[in-house]
Amino acid sequence: MSATAAAATATTSPLPVLGRDVLVPLVTGGEVSYAALDYAASAPALQRVWDDIAAYAPYYGSVHRGAGYLSQLSTDLFENSRRDVAAFLGCRPDDQVIFTRATTDSLNLLAAALPQGTRVFVFETEHHASLLPWQQREGVEVGYLSAPRSPRQAARTLERALADWRAEANTGAALVCVTGASNVTGELWPVRELAEVAHAYGARIVLDAAQLAPHHPVDIAALDVDWVAFSGHKLYAPFGAGVLAGRADWLREAQPYLAGGGASRKVARKGDGGVDVEWHTTEARHEAGSPNVIGAYAIASACKALTEAGFESLVARERELIAKVRAGLAEVPEVRVLSLFGDDAPRVGVISFVVEGWNSSHFAAALSAEYGIGVRDGLFCAHPLVRTLLGGEPGEAGECGAPEAAPGERSLNAIRVSFGAGTPDEHVERFVGAVKELVRDGAKWSYRTEDGRCVPDRG
Amino acid sequence: MSATAAAATATTSPLPVLGRDVLVPLVTGGEVSYAALDYAASAPALQRVWDDIAAYAPYYGSVHRGAGYLSQLSTDLFENSRRDVAAFLGCRPDDQVIFTRATTDSLNLLAAALPQGTRVFVFETEHHASLLPWQQREGVEVGYLSAPRSPRQAARTLERALADWRAEANTGAALVCVTGASNVTGELWPVRELAEVAHAYGARIVLDAAQLAPHHPVDIAALDVDWVAFSGHKLYAPFGAGVLAGRADWLREAQPYLAGGGASRKVARKGDGGVDVEWHTTEARHEAGSPNVIGAYAIASACKALTEAGFESLVARERELIAKVRAGLAEVPEVRVLSLFGDDAPRVGVISFVVEGWNSSHFAAALSAEYGIGVRDGLFCAHPLVRTLLGGEPGEAGECGAPEAAPGERSLNAIRVSFGAGTPDEHVERFVGAVKELVRDGAKWSYRTEDGRCVPDRG
Repeated sequence: MSATAAAATATTSPLPVLGRDVLVPLVTGGEVSYAALDYAASAPALQRVWDDIAAYAPYYGSVHRGAGYLSQLSTDLFENSRRDVAAFLGCRPDDQVIFTRATTDSLNLLAAALPQGTRVFVFETEHHASLLPWQQREGVEVGYLSAPRSPRQAARTLERALADWRAEANTGAALVCVTGASNVTGELWPVRELAEVAHAYGARIVLDAAQLAPHHPVDIAALDVDWVAFSGHKLYAPFGAGVLAGRADWLREAQPYLAGGGASRKVARKGDGGVDVEWHTTEARHEAGSPNVIGAYAIASACKALTEAGFESLVARERELIAKVRAGLAEVPEVRVLSLFGDDAPRVGVISFVVEGWNSSHFAAALSAEYGIGVRDGLFCAHPLVRTLLGGEPGEAGECGAPEAAPGERSLNAIRVSFGAGTPDEHVERFVGAVKELVRDGAKWSYRTEDGRCVPDRG
Repeated sequence: MSATAAAATATTSPLPVLGRDVLVPLVTGGEVSYAALDYAASAPALQRVWDDIAAYAPYYGSVHRGAGYLSQLSTDLFENSRRDVAAFLGCRPDDQVIFTRATTDSLNLLAAALPQGTRVFVFETEHHASLLPWQQREGVEVGYLSAPRSPRQAARTLERALADWRAEANTGAALVCVTGASNVTGELWPVRELAEVAHAYGARIVLDAAQLAPHHPVDIAALDVDWVAFSGHKLYAPFGAGVLAGRADWLREAQPYLAGGGASRKVARKGDGGVDVEWHTTEARHEAGSPNVIGAYAIASACKALTEAGFESLVARERELIAKVRAGLAEVPEVRVLSLFGDDAPRVGVISFVVEGWNSSHFAAALSAEYGIGVRDGLFCAHPLVRTLLGGEPGEAGECGAPEAAPGERSLNAIRVSFGAGTPDEHVERFVGAVKELVRDGAKWSYRTEDGRCVPDRG
């Protein structure tokens, strides 16, 4: 590679995103291009997604609801988006693709659709969105599985739990919920193996692909999972939509997720003074209200962009960024990368760590204010997992002005860096350099807590 | 007004919207600018809303979740949007403003938040989104109230129902759900009076402002309603967000609407193998998952645009459009405008009608294909109301190629025309002219039903 080509690679990314030229002020003076390294929370929109939305916006019309040209065009766009997402996920002919607001919504929808008496199995290591919806449902029991320390142990733990449950002569329905890639460690879970175990015991399985889908092809049929859930805002399409895709049978028989127009086929007053409703059995059953056609189209556009770019080449390139970050962090003895499955586990571009002697909020604030780098600090909506990884009760960060822990003491929360197809090399290089400099020289500025945020102390 | 100024008025609108220059093909040859007259289903985005979103999009970041500059900027934008909506609605200090996906979602959220044993009173004339969520809730009983034929009768009907209910020595909670403006007739409901009646009997009241908020200022304190729900996509901000605003107490005590991150403050494994959750008591309790910041900001931008344009002047100008359409339709004896409260009732720009001897789908298809006018035909997700208005059981439109009803027979469904601050005079003038021409000369083309749509028969 020539020097010019190398420099171009350093500042460009495989897929251009909005915000790539945004400058942010440094507390130490001047401006720098913003390094968005919080993809695991929300990824910037792909330029392609934005361009598609901008081209469509003047043609926006009511979906499933109008006789006009733009209504029909918008209805077609919405239904074609459904087909594009189905193709992206490799859906089976009888799968439904339901547009939701995000992964959290998708999993709450599935929880509401479970047959009465379903037993749910979920690892305590899950994000709260996959951990918590099940216990909300009346008539559903949840079995929480302890954190495994290897993919193999995950399969064994699940197998034991399912065997015990079946041994109680239980013939009811069961559902396993598992993440594809951890939102804390980035580590891949053995989805195919867990699906095999689940199905061997007559259980079904839903894949929380919020962190997997943006980084890795997801094939619902090849993985043999029953449902997949993911969010547009983590897949470069932050327009308020998400997806639940999979088996139609439970969805068709469940109470509609939301009651309202669109979901109802016929409504009539009954003789006894009540109201009689005939609900749709298609996806519309769970999509009451006017569909978010812009959100759905944005997701379809992102799916096509990832596929057309050659998803495998994006995976390979992201692997290089991961290696670069991990190698850089490994050179700093004060840094401890959080891991459940160990160094060799395959992973996506999501890496959490703590820095000995540093308050994580303080560290993250300094990365932002002094280097223009956006990461996340905290517990990442996965408290039980972070507790396990930190080796004790996590907690509020407290005042960020002072280190929270003396050397040797454990941290109360962590720092997460995450990236993807919109990340130029320069961002991760700047990040690694900043970590080294901060640990070596300390922050150049002092910080204090204000309204729950750690901010530069200007005064 | 000079001729030039009059011509400009004819083709411009008080608030410019996207799509104002979109050309659509006519089946009879050539192109014409699209007349979007289906605002009651979905309004086009205001140009101002789009410009605001476009300016923000490069600065998009995770809300409530990141340490980076753009995350903090996005968090501020989201929370400021909440404040702007509160100001737009004249919220009281202890009201919460929760961002949902749309009105349907808002009312389903409120239904889920009702105290156990709440009695709900709802007129059968409501849109399915306000009619149906309540009976889904276990432990909630619904009293359906018959269609009143005047605002005064509405208040009397409600008063009688509440009095009967209280007479049964019932001391539980009660909720009245009422629309501000009908999505079928456009007629305004006596919200202030109904609120007075409700409160007199210790009941609460929620206002479905989906059709009111885009056309009329809504002041939650002046109307003395407990909650207001509306949608972004009918308020010129079609980016997947809506609002539920009002009393915090029931919301704070209810189970979180969605279980997941953002709504949960602390999650820990319990000794007995379960999971213990401490939920937020702020709006975040019901906003699990990453907030749709673009959707929320779009709504706030639209609210500001309506306020800054002088909402009362928009109301006055819309009244002129309504008068023009109603006067035009009144000149066609075959047209019957649907009305619950009579000709003198105040209304917004939503007008439904049937044409004697015409299949409504056929008529709407001809308006689109031969005049470039987008209206809606059908039952408008308000089946019991439309049934009452049509004077019998509504039904499927059947094959649209032939008139459904011989002269004198009743229609099975209706045609709705709706407009607002983005509508130029020319659109409603073209509509009135087209109705007259179609009734006088018949359609120039023949139509047939294909995939449930009425489309030009191209042979």
